[in-house]
Amino acid sequence: MGKNKIKIFSGSANRSLAQEIADHIGIPLGEAEVGRFSDGEIRIGIQESVRGKNVFLIQPLCNPANEHIMELLILIDALKRASAHSVNAVVPYYGYARQDRKTRARDPITAKLLADLITAAGASRVVAMDLHAGQIQGFFNIPFDHLTAVPIIANYLKQKRIRGEGVVVSPDLGGVTRARELANRLGLPIAVIDKKRPAPNQAEVVNIIGEVENRVTILIDDIIDTAGTIVLGGEALKKKGALEVYACCTHPVFSGPALERLNGAFIEEVVYTNSIPVEASLPTEKFHGLSVAPLIGEAIIRISEERSVSALFD
Amino acid sequence: MGKNKIKIFSGSANRSLAQEIADHIGIPLGEAEVGRFSDGEIRIGIQESVRGKNVFLIQPLCNPANEHIMELLILIDALKRASAHSVNAVVPYYGYARQDRKTRARDPITAKLLADLITAAGASRVVAMDLHAGQIQGFFNIPFDHLTAVPIIANYLKQKRIRGEGVVVSPDLGGVTRARELANRLGLPIAVIDKKRPAPNQAEVVNIIGEVENRVTILIDDIIDTAGTIVLGGEALKKKGALEVYACCTHPVFSGPALERLNGAFIEEVVYTNSIPVEASLPTEKFHGLSVAPLIGEAIIRISEERSVSALFD
Amino acid sequence: MGKNKIKIFSGSANRSLAQEIADHIGIPLGEAEVGRFSDGEIRIGIQESVRGKNVFLIQPLCNPANEHIMELLILIDALKRASAHSVNAVVPYYGYARQDRKTRARDPITAKLLADLITAAGASRVVAMDLHAGQIQGFFNIPFDHLTAVPIIANYLKQKRIRGEGVVVSPDLGGVTRARELANRLGLPIAVIDKKRPAPNQAEVVNIIGEVENRVTILIDDIIDTAGTIVLGGEALKKKGALEVYACCTHPVFSGPALERLNGAFIEEVVYTNSIPVEASLPTEKFHGLSVAPLIGEAIIRISEERSVSALFD
Amino acid sequence: MGKNKIKIFSGSANRSLAQEIADHIGIPLGEAEVGRFSDGEIRIGIQESVRGKNVFLIQPLCNPANEHIMELLILIDALKRASAHSVNAVVPYYGYARQDRKTRARDPITAKLLADLITAAGASRVVAMDLHAGQIQGFFNIPFDHLTAVPIIANYLKQKRIRGEGVVVSPDLGGVTRARELANRLGLPIAVIDKKRPAPNQAEVVNIIGEVENRVTILIDDIIDTAGTIVLGGEALKKKGALEVYACCTHPVFSGPALERLNGAFIEEVVYTNSIPVEASLPTEKFHGLSVAPLIGEAIIRISEERSVSALFD
Amino acid sequence: MGKNKIKIFSGSANRSLAQEIADHIGIPLGEAEVGRFSDGEIRIGIQESVRGKNVFLIQPLCNPANEHIMELLILIDALKRASAHSVNAVVPYYGYARQDRKTRARDPITAKLLADLITAAGASRVVAMDLHAGQIQGFFNIPFDHLTAVPIIANYLKQKRIRGEGVVVSPDLGGVTRARELANRLGLPIAVIDKKRPAPNQAEVVNIIGEVENRVTILIDDIIDTAGTIVLGGEALKKKGALEVYACCTHPVFSGPALERLNGAFIEEVVYTNSIPVEASLPTEKFHGLSVAPLIGEAIIRISEERSVSALFD
Amino acid sequence: MGKNKIKIFSGSANRSLAQEIADHIGIPLGEAEVGRFSDGEIRIGIQESVRGKNVFLIQPLCNPANEHIMELLILIDALKRASAHSVNAVVPYYGYARQDRKTRARDPITAKLLADLITAAGASRVVAMDLHAGQIQGFFNIPFDHLTAVPIIANYLKQKRIRGEGVVVSPDLGGVTRARELANRLGLPIAVIDKKRPAPNQAEVVNIIGEVENRVTILIDDIIDTAGTIVLGGEALKKKGALEVYACCTHPVFSGPALERLNGAFIEEVVYTNSIPVEASLPTEKFHGLSVAPLIGEAIIRISEERSVSALFD
Repeated sequence: MGKNKIKIFSGSANRSLAQEIADHIGIPLGEAEVGRFSDGEIRIGIQESVRGKNVFLIQPLCNPANEHIMELLILIDALKRASAHSVNAVVPYYGYARQDRKTRARDPITAKLLADLITAAGASRVVAMDLHAGQIQGFFNIPFDHLTAVPIIANYLKQKRIRGEGVVVSPDLGGVTRARELANRLGLPIAVIDKKRPAPNQAEVVNIIGEVENRVTILIDDIIDTAGTIVLGGEALKKKGALEVYACCTHPVFSGPALERLNGAFIEEVVYTNSIPVEASLPTEKFHGLSVAPLIGEAIIRISEERSVSALFD
Repeated sequence: MGKNKIKIFSGSANRSLAQEIADHIGIPLGEAEVGRFSDGEIRIGIQESVRGKNVFLIQPLCNPANEHIMELLILIDALKRASAHSVNAVVPYYGYARQDRKTRARDPITAKLLADLITAAGASRVVAMDLHAGQIQGFFNIPFDHLTAVPIIANYLKQKRIRGEGVVVSPDLGGVTRARELANRLGLPIAVIDKKRPAPNQAEVVNIIGEVENRVTILIDDIIDTAGTIVLGGEALKKKGALEVYACCTHPVFSGPALERLNGAFIEEVVYTNSIPVEASLPTEKFHGLSVAPLIGEAIIRISEERSVSALFD
Repeated sequence: MGKNKIKIFSGSANRSLAQEIADHIGIPLGEAEVGRFSDGEIRIGIQESVRGKNVFLIQPLCNPANEHIMELLILIDALKRASAHSVNAVVPYYGYARQDRKTRARDPITAKLLADLITAAGASRVVAMDLHAGQIQGFFNIPFDHLTAVPIIANYLKQKRIRGEGVVVSPDLGGVTRARELANRLGLPIAVIDKKRPAPNQAEVVNIIGEVENRVTILIDDIIDTAGTIVLGGEALKKKGALEVYACCTHPVFSGPALERLNGAFIEEVVYTNSIPVEASLPTEKFHGLSVAPLIGEAIIRISEERSVSALFD
Repeated sequence: MGKNKIKIFSGSANRSLAQEIADHIGIPLGEAEVGRFSDGEIRIGIQESVRGKNVFLIQPLCNPANEHIMELLILIDALKRASAHSVNAVVPYYGYARQDRKTRARDPITAKLLADLITAAGASRVVAMDLHAGQIQGFFNIPFDHLTAVPIIANYLKQKRIRGEGVVVSPDLGGVTRARELANRLGLPIAVIDKKRPAPNQAEVVNIIGEVENRVTILIDDIIDTAGTIVLGGEALKKKGALEVYACCTHPVFSGPALERLNGAFIEEVVYTNSIPVEASLPTEKFHGLSVAPLIGEAIIRISEERSVSALFD
Repeated sequence: MGKNKIKIFSGSANRSLAQEIADHIGIPLGEAEVGRFSDGEIRIGIQESVRGKNVFLIQPLCNPANEHIMELLILIDALKRASAHSVNAVVPYYGYARQDRKTRARDPITAKLLADLITAAGASRVVAMDLHAGQIQGFFNIPFDHLTAVPIIANYLKQKRIRGEGVVVSPDLGGVTRARELANRLGLPIAVIDKKRPAPNQAEVVNIIGEVENRVTILIDDIIDTAGTIVLGGEALKKKGALEVYACCTHPVFSGPALERLNGAFIEEVVYTNSIPVEASLPTEKFHGLSVAPLIGEAIIRISEERSVSALFD
Repeated sequence: MGKNKIKIFSGSANRSLAQEIADHIGIPLGEAEVGRFSDGEIRIGIQESVRGKNVFLIQPLCNPANEHIMELLILIDALKRASAHSVNAVVPYYGYARQDRKTRARDPITAKLLADLITAAGASRVVAMDLHAGQIQGFFNIPFDHLTAVPIIANYLKQKRIRGEGVVVSPDLGGVTRARELANRLGLPIAVIDKKRPAPNQAEVVNIIGEVENRVTILIDDIIDTAGTIVLGGEALKKKGALEVYACCTHPVFSGPALERLNGAFIEEVVYTNSIPVEASLPTEKFHGLSVAPLIGEAIIRISEERSVSALFD
């Protein structure tokens, strides 16, 4: 492709991340307005020619997800019709990722629907980060670059020089391979939190499988949403004698009671990335954000120069 | 198809219209929840089997359009995966219809994108009403039944027995064929309101082409959105000596200052249909809603019995 | 793309336009025969390699439309199979454009069908001019460059220095926005010709909405086909006291009685472009053709150099 | 499907065949106009509802092929949009069949293009007869019923009780398997006519491979177009001492000098079917037409009753 | 659909299962040969008409997977071209399911490729059982019925009346939710086997997370392939003091050293289903096969009668 | 494309041919493992980045065809997902080519299915050689370069300076145009072998059409599979007084009894190419292999340099 043919545009979901990425690459952010008409329909205006350009469109699909999805699709449509050479959808946070299979009769598989919508709109490529399930990559037939922020989180934790013995803990059964991945980077064992209902109509019992007593515990999840799982996990770890609890995630959805819960919980520090914008009002002593802009910027440079992206993680 | 194989489901956009339609047909509304997760993502649950059924899904794409569009697409995905025999998207109000062509460089054609999204999600058929442009029907390759509420509006106006000479007025150049259609049903002449800017940086001049003096004027549009066009039209008609102004539309978007403007305007009565739900708090002496439920219900019966739908408008 | 990678080919519809365009760009017209077998099937032979080239194929879809459409599709098929890098269909006149929506039950939407056929044959891009309806652009999902000859017509009329007050007149309700566009470029007001049938079985009444008395009137349409509408319009304008009538169009279809009617009509001059070839035998004092070859040539250069095409019309 | 759900429509290519087929099935031909606008564009009007019906559309793609192809595609589009349950394209003569592979660089494969166009327009199934190459069936992914008129021709020849020894002759190398098929049904040997050019710039030499002296020879081809091949074959057979020559084909294209040539040739009788309409003015003593209407009618009945079509040829 | 319109066909992968299913439904197995030509290409012959029928094609994609996949695709192609009303691919064992995401750079996602191949061949629906990952269902856009044999395995274990305290054990981190599912049906807790490499170049350490001492342990996996994981798991459980080990799976791939390993291992009994055929020579005291034919047969009946399939598992 | 952007990869079907091709071009063969998991599923590992490269994948689809097809498809999938700029499938031998049309009811058209699978997997282009039927090229819509080894075979035969009069013989009716093509290059006449069954239940009679007595006969076929046809042809030619028989083919499938038959037959020499690998143990005095690597290598260079490939055969 060549760097002089790249343009970076941003939807309204995370303009500051898009600006950071553009700065990292060393080009200005493309000029485009993404607004609303009086009736709530999306109004976009792309102010510069994109003919023949490789456009990277930065848009995490965070809350309000439906608005951000429609913005993404409409921008792809406009860029495609404006004769961009390629339209690369960079979605650091892939929304609806947890609806990736049918768990009840007549469920939608919204994560696949979303893949089909992005493809139908005309995207040439998707760049995403820490997908809830790796199989989502298979929902697409267009090239897909899957980045991970786990090394960034691991580096941060290493620099903290946590004293005492550590253990990485998966907050539920589904996240156990992610916990193993972080544990490998930190050289630590893992534990798992298992919830089960002994019988119908009885309360759910939280059970910890693995050793956590007298250890510094590191909870890791891809997403912290309402924080219910994480906070319950923290309580259970405390009861079992954990010394400290660190709660880490790539995607800080932080919806509903999340911030309140996290503030009040038995959690030393909450570590997250800026894949999703978080309000500035967080108590900074407890919340620690890490930037993924250099990672995404580097990936865009490698894609445009046709060099290996996977080598970024070796 | 046969009536015993029909099921009617509703998204959250206009449940009361869906209920009216189901009542007209004489079957219960299908059981389905359409809610939100804490982070704003759509959660749906379809509580009854749809295997082998012809499902009609009622969802006007009104404000908040993006939410209603995503609901529609997710419901279609779920119904298709649940082995419905056909999934018929009934969208009395087709959103983004005004973005049906490029008017500036790098514009999206969102009305076409929407058609592609509905098709990609898996709809078998679309039923819509009074499209902003008839060409939108061509955006689809699946069967499309296009209904019109103009006869319903014409019948209402006839019953009013407006005294004096009438004229149907198009509030702008683009709506002139719609005005002609209503005028034909009422046996009246037409006039057109033309806005132009004499020179760059000069104010727009509103000009009325045709005879309106001492006449009862009937403004007709497909959509009343912010009501700016209609209200300006009313003022211009008043200045030119019109006796009274009736403002009619199929789709009462009524966004932003619309209700306030309409209340204060030189307009005798605002006539609209329930394609879009309007809050109950309207001053009923000035606002008159007409129901399209019998029309849509009849269309669904004809589709399911494989009888001509066009014959409804003969 | 780069100019040295462009090739221009022509179907049989308008070879002289294709030659003019190639001359403007400064490259020879590609060698290809487009003939017929004895049974009327199309025989083509492309005499030079197109591997890796960006081919622009010039073919207005004028009468005989079906022959020209099939030529276009077969040429696209051959060029695609011959490994052209891109196949750009340049259709200055888009045929079947008036069948762009259903006006009666069981109508085809042939303008959309045509879009699907061009896409199925393998075109990479379409370049067209003054579409009957802008929505036709949305019938495609491949990039589409929409040119307009209205500035060319406006410049010609400006140079004529028409004496007296002018008015731009739309010959029917559907063309009123096109009239407004030309009027804006000339700084003139508009009028509209409205035809209606007072009652079933009564003759149609032609009515002029707007001021035309003692004015020089400029009728503008995208297409002059049988010239019935234009000639009736001329008569009506004359009756209302118009001084002179100019009849302008982009696409001179001129079918059936068109030339005879135009010759005999109350029309000063007929202005048209060479999007469609017109026989040489026209009485030149009344008929004035304008060339769109420089415009199309310029658009092709900009497309190939990946510069903005819309900027051509600023 | 059920017979009461069938409708038969006809394009303009061969209405008398369509009528015969409808008569055979015992239902009226569907009411549809297929005409032309003044500028040559196709105008269709379907006068009866087809909603939910299985429509069979009879249209051989004979001269003028491009007109008949576009009629077919537009009718399919209209029927699909009118909610027909299935649209079955019955093309007794499949046009462009001889352009089924690339024989020179940059050739189109028009027979495949045609398959893609028919599919893109929305056909559900194709019924064709004696394809020039069986592989054309593979150009489609929709169900395809391939009929053959060879048994009808064989039966006719058997009834003639040709005296003396016979031989079936292929007029060129490509048709040799078709000759074997007819020979099998008649219990006769075969011969082949081979044309070659001994050296560049020398005249082509016609050579007969196999025994024909003192035999009644039966030339068989799928198509007789300009009749050059057949007439040359007749001459060559005569020179080699053949007693008589019968020339048979399924598809009487008869273009250019065909009738004149056949009249003057050393050919006893020309046998053909009504897959393509032939003018009534043929000298009936030499030309003998056979009807395929009962065969096609029977196939349609079997398709609609979901019984085996292949069993027709056992 | 109706039962009299069903036909059951079988590829060569598991004819005895197909026969059992047909017997359960009460219809004969469709007549079709699936053989090989001398050069190894697949030769099929379908001996009965399938026109208008709903065909269910039974073919687990077990070893040799590539042969069985190609058989499935070719049979689908033949059935589709033979005008079957629907072609339902019943693949009790979905091959390549473990290649469902990229774990290294430049990995294929073969499970998705397979979904695209099945769809491209023309299948209308897929019925599968205990997919390695539920997300594979999202690889398809056609209806997909996902069955599970876990209740069958649970019932068998319940009937065994295992004495002492039990625990369900996942043999690796990825299978922990499956273990939880079986544990719920048996009212037991779970444990997980975690393998990690303490440092590069050091041997992998097997660690058991959860309580297994003095318990009857039930290892559950979707697939037992080479049995390495299961046998190592058995050893580890033995070391930690487990009383007995039961090894259960839906899909007995049993490749390479699997049977030998299982025979020699600390495993009381190996429980599996007939989704994949297992040779008759197994030592029956240790290997116990369960039939899924009644389950699949019941699903087919419900699909054909348009009744809920999910209700089978309530 | 440019040579420095090419990469050549090989499946397991014919690595030595791939190596020869890479050597001809002057670049190393790309590093990729193509192996099997224990259960027979294909395991591939591509060891170098292909981002932005034009990859040519060499894989004849010879025995075991199904294994080689699945390898090809999986490699295409991996390369596409790894962001190759183009994936060019080079299949010197196109498997299943003889199943290119329906010869019996309910036959598959596997050659078309294969085309759809290759396209669905994501190939950008196909390069093949001496297709069984030229129409197979039309099964694809992606660019297709069709090479022929007939000039290579003709050159070899010319160099042999066969004494006496020669004749090229087609071993069956279907191959007669291929025989004509070779005969043209050698300046020889042709003959055809015709098999027929005089009556049901009688033995097939082999008949030679054309002159072969006292001639050196050259049998030519695209494929020699079980060699039954060729060997029977040799016997028949011997009986009719042929002096010598040369048996030539492009694709040496040589399945089942082929080698034994050819060794024992009245055949002087068997000439074939290395499109398919043949074991080294052939008696070299009778079997003569010709390499197509320079031809394929040259084609790849021309494709990458965007020069005409057809010119190779002028």
